[in-house]
Amino acid sequence: MHIHVEGVAGLPIIHKGDDLLALICEKVVFADGDILCIASSVYSKAKGYTKILSDITPTERAVRIAGKTKEDPRFIQAVLDASTDVLLEYPFVLSEVSCGHIGVRAGVDQSNIEDGMLILLPPDPMAAAAGVREAVQKITGKTVGVIITDTCGRSFRRGQTGHAIGWSGMTAIRDFRGDTDLFGHVLKITEEAVVDEIAGFANFVMGESNNGVPAVVFRNCGTWTGHDDLYFRPDEDLTRAMLKKETG
Amino acid sequence: MHIHVEGVAGLPIIHKGDDLLALICEKVVFADGDILCIASSVYSKAKGYTKILSDITPTERAVRIAGKTKEDPRFIQAVLDASTDVLLEYPFVLSEVSCGHIGVRAGVDQSNIEDGMLILLPPDPMAAAAGVREAVQKITGKTVGVIITDTCGRSFRRGQTGHAIGWSGMTAIRDFRGDTDLFGHVLKITEEAVVDEIAGFANFVMGESNNGVPAVVFRNCGTWTGHDDLYFRPDEDLTRAMLKKETG
Repeated sequence: MHIHVEGVAGLPIIHKGDDLLALICEKVVFADGDILCIASSVYSKAKGYTKILSDITPTERAVRIAGKTKEDPRFIQAVLDASTDVLLEYPFVLSEVSCGHIGVRAGVDQSNIEDGMLILLPPDPMAAAAGVREAVQKITGKTVGVIITDTCGRSFRRGQTGHAIGWSGMTAIRDFRGDTDLFGHVLKITEEAVVDEIAGFANFVMGESNNGVPAVVFRNCGTWTGHDDLYFRPDEDLTRAMLKKETG
Repeated sequence: MHIHVEGVAGLPIIHKGDDLLALICEKVVFADGDILCIASSVYSKAKGYTKILSDITPTERAVRIAGKTKEDPRFIQAVLDASTDVLLEYPFVLSEVSCGHIGVRAGVDQSNIEDGMLILLPPDPMAAAAGVREAVQKITGKTVGVIITDTCGRSFRRGQTGHAIGWSGMTAIRDFRGDTDLFGHVLKITEEAVVDEIAGFANFVMGESNNGVPAVVFRNCGTWTGHDDLYFRPDEDLTRAMLKKETG
């Protein structure tokens, strides 16, 4: 399997209302089966999923948390507004957002946007991915897979990695149930989170800081079968259960 | 950045004593700067880091844990022997191994090996990666980076992904400290675990089950600066602290 991976560079700084997909399709010659990864931040900027910090009035809770984390209470309010379940308040807010993703500060970001502005995660990243897929189809006639990525930390290991928060045209999990290994044993490890493996490498290609590569195209990744149950249910998520116990 | 990624297919089933690197170098035309990812399982098989299940006498502790997890006590004994710190016994053993990596069942694997055999993680995966790097240099004259990968689960999200447990010729973390974003703000997110992002995509290319692709070559990944402190210290690892508290 020879895979070709290319960062989409040379895009202008994106603002609300920009036709991000038209801009990307100007830079990329898509083929059927390609996978397009887009950073949630640039998608949200184009769609206007942003907030002006000075428009936010923090609640008492936000002021209390911000006192502990030493962040702007208005920023914390934006994080709380984006959260459906707060798992941890300190040393950083860790929370679930409506799509089921659990991340630090609910993915609210102050970088790569004008001073005093915040970038939110897309409120429905699955719909976002499906919409991007449709847009590429409409503009280029090509059928691609799409992953919307976010950058998050993880347990035990330092450093952020890219994660998938929305996807379309593929399943999140490649399911090996019933498959056998090289020796004919039925496999015990049966589920591989392929969208996160692809999103992680897309994040590597994007880089952070000022690279200006908010999208990455993968060619020849093949296909797989599986399912979309990427997030543990609360009752099967050990880490979450412990965090909830700890924080009450 | 155009990156080319290729799975190394067509290798025979590997046994103790096989010259894995010679076999890989027959299949790949390396260039300076390539990154070679190797599954820890195939590396361990070649080096003989395996155990015969029937040679293992389980301790009381292993019997007790195996009673809860419904696994073979001898398998659990091998897991305990490979562990330097057990964080969780049930529903699965989660433990730290000597290199600092924390994983389920200490990475001890019963798949892709003959019945009654176990594959262990390499005892020193950093040295393993350095040794692979040297071997490629010796065989081909090319200077490559090397990542030894393992497959693990994670918090909050279902499914396994590839992780780096050893690396050579690169730093684990790409460090953006002091960098600025597109708007000139000094970045808050400063550390990206690039070895895990690369290992994850390598795992995607390897697939699981019977694909027989235990190594993956990346070309044109560029270079970065950073550091190798991939594992949190126990005192800064929130999840670990909670697990230890929970399990006593």
